[in-house]
Amino acid sequence: MNEKEIIDRLRNKDVRAVARLLTLIENEEKLAETILKKIWKHTGNSYIIGITGPPGAGKSSIVDLLTKMAIEKGHKVGVLAVDPTSPFSGGAVLGDRLRMTSAQSTGIFIRSVASRGHLGGLAATTRFMINAIEMLGNDITIVETVGAGQGDVEIVQIADTTIVVEVPGLGDEVQAQKAGILEIGDILVVNKGDRPGSDRLSKELAMMLSLGEEKEWMPPIVTTTATNGNGFEDLWHEIMNHKKYLGTEKKNTMRLKRINYELENQVSQKLFTKKMVQIGSNEIPNMAKDILNRKIDPLTAVEKIIRE
Amino acid sequence: MNEKEIIDRLRNKDVRAVARLLTLIENEEKLAETILKKIWKHTGNSYIIGITGPPGAGKSSIVDLLTKMAIEKGHKVGVLAVDPTSPFSGGAVLGDRLRMTSAQSTGIFIRSVASRGHLGGLAATTRFMINAIEMLGNDITIVETVGAGQGDVEIVQIADTTIVVEVPGLGDEVQAQKAGILEIGDILVVNKGDRPGSDRLSKELAMMLSLGEEKEWMPPIVTTTATNGNGFEDLWHEIMNHKKYLGTEKKNTMRLKRINYELENQVSQKLFTKKMVQIGSNEIPNMAKDILNRKIDPLTAVEKIIRE
Repeated sequence: MNEKEIIDRLRNKDVRAVARLLTLIENEEKLAETILKKIWKHTGNSYIIGITGPPGAGKSSIVDLLTKMAIEKGHKVGVLAVDPTSPFSGGAVLGDRLRMTSAQSTGIFIRSVASRGHLGGLAATTRFMINAIEMLGNDITIVETVGAGQGDVEIVQIADTTIVVEVPGLGDEVQAQKAGILEIGDILVVNKGDRPGSDRLSKELAMMLSLGEEKEWMPPIVTTTATNGNGFEDLWHEIMNHKKYLGTEKKNTMRLKRINYELENQVSQKLFTKKMVQIGSNEIPNMAKDILNRKIDPLTAVEKIIRE
Repeated sequence: MNEKEIIDRLRNKDVRAVARLLTLIENEEKLAETILKKIWKHTGNSYIIGITGPPGAGKSSIVDLLTKMAIEKGHKVGVLAVDPTSPFSGGAVLGDRLRMTSAQSTGIFIRSVASRGHLGGLAATTRFMINAIEMLGNDITIVETVGAGQGDVEIVQIADTTIVVEVPGLGDEVQAQKAGILEIGDILVVNKGDRPGSDRLSKELAMMLSLGEEKEWMPPIVTTTATNGNGFEDLWHEIMNHKKYLGTEKKNTMRLKRINYELENQVSQKLFTKKMVQIGSNEIPNMAKDILNRKIDPLTAVEKIIRE
């Protein structure tokens, strides 16, 4: 497919063209940028639900059940599963998910996202992938990220509603990370609710939330069991609750704030890259050595680099 | 004191001139930059010990005992206690510390550091304050920061040896933050070793360390009791051990890496600020609105801002 063909097909909500564009974005090809620029005005129309949590928390089962439920309720759903690790690691998962895809005849895409790259890092690239999927005309996009450090924090810059999934029995070292993860969840899910310890985990989370700062939106805690579907009506209800709480105004204020932040970020990065091209990539390491050896002070060094 | 007078006095290791320069840095006065540039070549000669931990962990008692011990062992010590909160909050503490200062006749300075500012943020400003203190000719500088989020992580960019202080009985919510804090400590101190729970805390920390990744330097855990001085010979021994482990080469490699990182940071910030002056501070917020409303795509927006 060439540029024109991809764009034409995207305008006709073609799933294969979306898959193609996602791969172009994944591979950081220049053509991705050209196409994204041209389709931009047709994107941004879906409500974005982010799902994150530690490996083994059952995120993909939750995504699958939520997707099915949303479709039954008359929504059109696109799903993006972001694998922050290498593109080679997702083989088995990919197989599982593709089977599911056909069963539900909706757009489910699994892609890896480089945390740096010329589209501007994890959050920016993921957002462009969502835009690509939005060409399907879906009103909901579900984004799943493996809760592995950076991704956790960045998903909050992407989703309108962020769901953090926890499970009982992942050991104390995981518990220790909870404090940070709790901060980003609009809804907390205790998954594998049939396991021993799920009640206790739920109470622990409630206690940790009550210790935290008072917020206008206090995250509800929902217990789910993906194997029998228990709790999923509640989860859906809470998502819709949060969507209603945001409304158009809060949602757009939030999106605007993120765009602003991202724009500053991108401009800084690009200005720096441009400067490095101009002065050569050895200039900063050399200057750093001179600073260490007291040949130049850091303030003068910065001024000199800027002036050059 | 005018510029020339301050510099002359600094060259004569005058404590009052150091205090004056620190205040100039604290208040972000232009004169601070002028002086720092001129004294740069005489700085960088002390070994930097960073001490961080949650409020109430007894960091200042540890600093005091360590300072006393170092002086007894023939070192010349400068101390910087960084209060990341407002300059108005530290009154009581300041009083306590000043009493101590005179008893030990060494340079102990308490300053607040703005986390943003034209000297370049918390880490950069703190480093300049250390440089100011180094004009005393001290071979050791102890830097104490309140372990309040950002400061924790930034101190690791400053100190040659970072000591993280924990105490038993600060409650589970604090425990939850430990995982992050452990990452940055070269030495872990369990303070208030006479309290119930200190053995348990020490064992917990050892377990968490053993769960973490294998590192060339495995942080030792030292139990101290500031009230009777127990454990301080051990602590001193471990600091010297880490200093020996680093040697000149590892220490300089580490310092160079930080200078390099900081330089990139400063250059990016300055380039961005310069661009904002050039195009006006409303340009980015306006562009962000246009992106949200699909009037322009983010890629074109960035290109446009860079070109302007």
